Amino acid sequence: MKIIDKEQILAVFDAERITELLKTGFIAYSAHQVQMPPVQHFLFNAAEGDCCIKSAWLEGDDQFVLKVSTGFYRNPEQGLPSNQGLMMAFSALTGEPQALLMDEGWLTALRTALAGRIAAELCAPNKVEAIGIVGTGMQAILQLQQLKAVTDCREVWVWGRHPQHLADFCREAEAAGFQVHTTQNTAELAAYCNLIVTTTPSREPLLQAQDIRPGTHITAVGADATGKQELATALVAKADAILVDAFRQCSEYGEIATAYRQNLLASVPIVEFGAILASGGNVRKEENQITLADLTGLAIQDVQIVKGILAGL
Amino acid sequence: MKIIDKEQILAVFDAERITELLKTGFIAYSAHQVQMPPVQHFLFNAAEGDCCIKSAWLEGDDQFVLKVSTGFYRNPEQGLPSNQGLMMAFSALTGEPQALLMDEGWLTALRTALAGRIAAELCAPNKVEAIGIVGTGMQAILQLQQLKAVTDCREVWVWGRHPQHLADFCREAEAAGFQVHTTQNTAELAAYCNLIVTTTPSREPLLQAQDIRPGTHITAVGADATGKQELATALVAKADAILVDAFRQCSEYGEIATAYRQNLLASVPIVEFGAILASGGNVRKEENQITLADLTGLAIQDVQIVKGILAGL
Repeated sequence: MKIIDKEQILAVFDAERITELLKTGFIAYSAHQVQMPPVQHFLFNAAEGDCCIKSAWLEGDDQFVLKVSTGFYRNPEQGLPSNQGLMMAFSALTGEPQALLMDEGWLTALRTALAGRIAAELCAPNKVEAIGIVGTGMQAILQLQQLKAVTDCREVWVWGRHPQHLADFCREAEAAGFQVHTTQNTAELAAYCNLIVTTTPSREPLLQAQDIRPGTHITAVGADATGKQELATALVAKADAILVDAFRQCSEYGEIATAYRQNLLASVPIVEFGAILASGGNVRKEENQITLADLTGLAIQDVQIVKGILAGL
Repeated sequence: MKIIDKEQILAVFDAERITELLKTGFIAYSAHQVQMPPVQHFLFNAAEGDCCIKSAWLEGDDQFVLKVSTGFYRNPEQGLPSNQGLMMAFSALTGEPQALLMDEGWLTALRTALAGRIAAELCAPNKVEAIGIVGTGMQAILQLQQLKAVTDCREVWVWGRHPQHLADFCREAEAAGFQVHTTQNTAELAAYCNLIVTTTPSREPLLQAQDIRPGTHITAVGADATGKQELATALVAKADAILVDAFRQCSEYGEIATAYRQNLLASVPIVEFGAILASGGNVRKEENQITLADLTGLAIQDVQIVKGILAGL
């Protein structure tokens, strides 16, 4: 079994190639060509930790992939990153373990950021006036970096609770070529931005329906388990069109879950990435629509990013 | 992360210590102290393979365990073992990966054999006249070896389809100190034996109700997924008492699943390992009862055997 460390992984990471692989994966998922058992979840209450175990096989592939990702939110107190993780590839012909990717959670972070990029391709307004990033962590900066491939806009507003985290984000975003404004008020961010990405593990809505301008697209990345929610339910219900990675997951525990359960989305078109990518269409039908993308994360994304990394080694 | 290979694992394997750990694990499981998400299953039809991914955390432990085990039934044609597998331990305090046990499926085989040993402790008749082993593979010989700790009986009947496999089994069983009879007729085996272990992946019943003598205990190890069945449904229904590792799994896809679905077990006491071990009782109430143990395999067993191996290193 090959053991591949984070440095080797980052050295061969190719955003363009992996974006194409992710699109293929989303299409295969929506076409029911992927075996993807329900996610295994753990909660470690005393340690404020959680873990999810995802696995998938794109039928016909020579390999299947397993991913373990954890979040322990007191780790930074000990100088450890909150998120840890690894991925493994096994032969779908003999069952033998083939590769262990000790990516320390990077591959999950990167494939999530690339899904945000694809969401923006499918939903963003033609003219992005400013990009809004809610959150200041690793996923926040990765999402911003990946949007450079989708829009020429280099003006960004970032929201965070902590001045120090905002300052850190600024430095990184400026190094990536952006002009950055910081705020501790999400309504101010929403007043300036019509392409917004929310990247927090919040359990309370950060953005309200009345804050959002017509023509805005929002990609919500944070809600990946029951109880997490970054957008007010009324804001979700106000969307003119919703893009989801997997209807089954998003309606159960994604950003749209509460609005869906309250039957507020009956007249809102909801489409999966794979369906819209297969048809070649666009989620946004008019420039002044509000669109929403809900990312819960699919194991087929892990399959595809592992494929991309192994092919580059 | 420590990487531990099969030789290192087998060098520290201590059957007594791990049997005690398994008992503790079964008790914790039945007392609802174990987080054990539903098993992830894959089917690789073209390659005649399957995979299951199990994970568990005994609440309060410093680590949780993930296990991948595969069966690819054409592997022997290429000189590879059918079963492959590995286990991993992660910190339940920080999420960090701690140990990768490259056991090649041995730990699953061993913890299953030790569960068979515990089943025999709880169910076997006082006087074992002869042991019957249905199947000739690795699990067959491991089950036999582990029964040495439970009974003084050293006479064994083995059933198999292939003369060569029977001969191979004989050699190993004789080396372990048994007097061995071979047969290709399960009814003959059942006529001589009152402690029987079935170890095959059969999808058709191998033992019939009328073959079994009063006072016999049968441990059925093979059925661990929908469609597998080693015992006739009428034989399962004829049991006076049934021991299960997990009621939830056994009633869904274990040996007893068909009889349970057909509502044939309404008057048969069914008890979990953990419940009977906690109470200190015995499944068999009278010497002439027929008892049955159904093993589907629990991730808590993987947790406990990993704990036992890591403690021995």
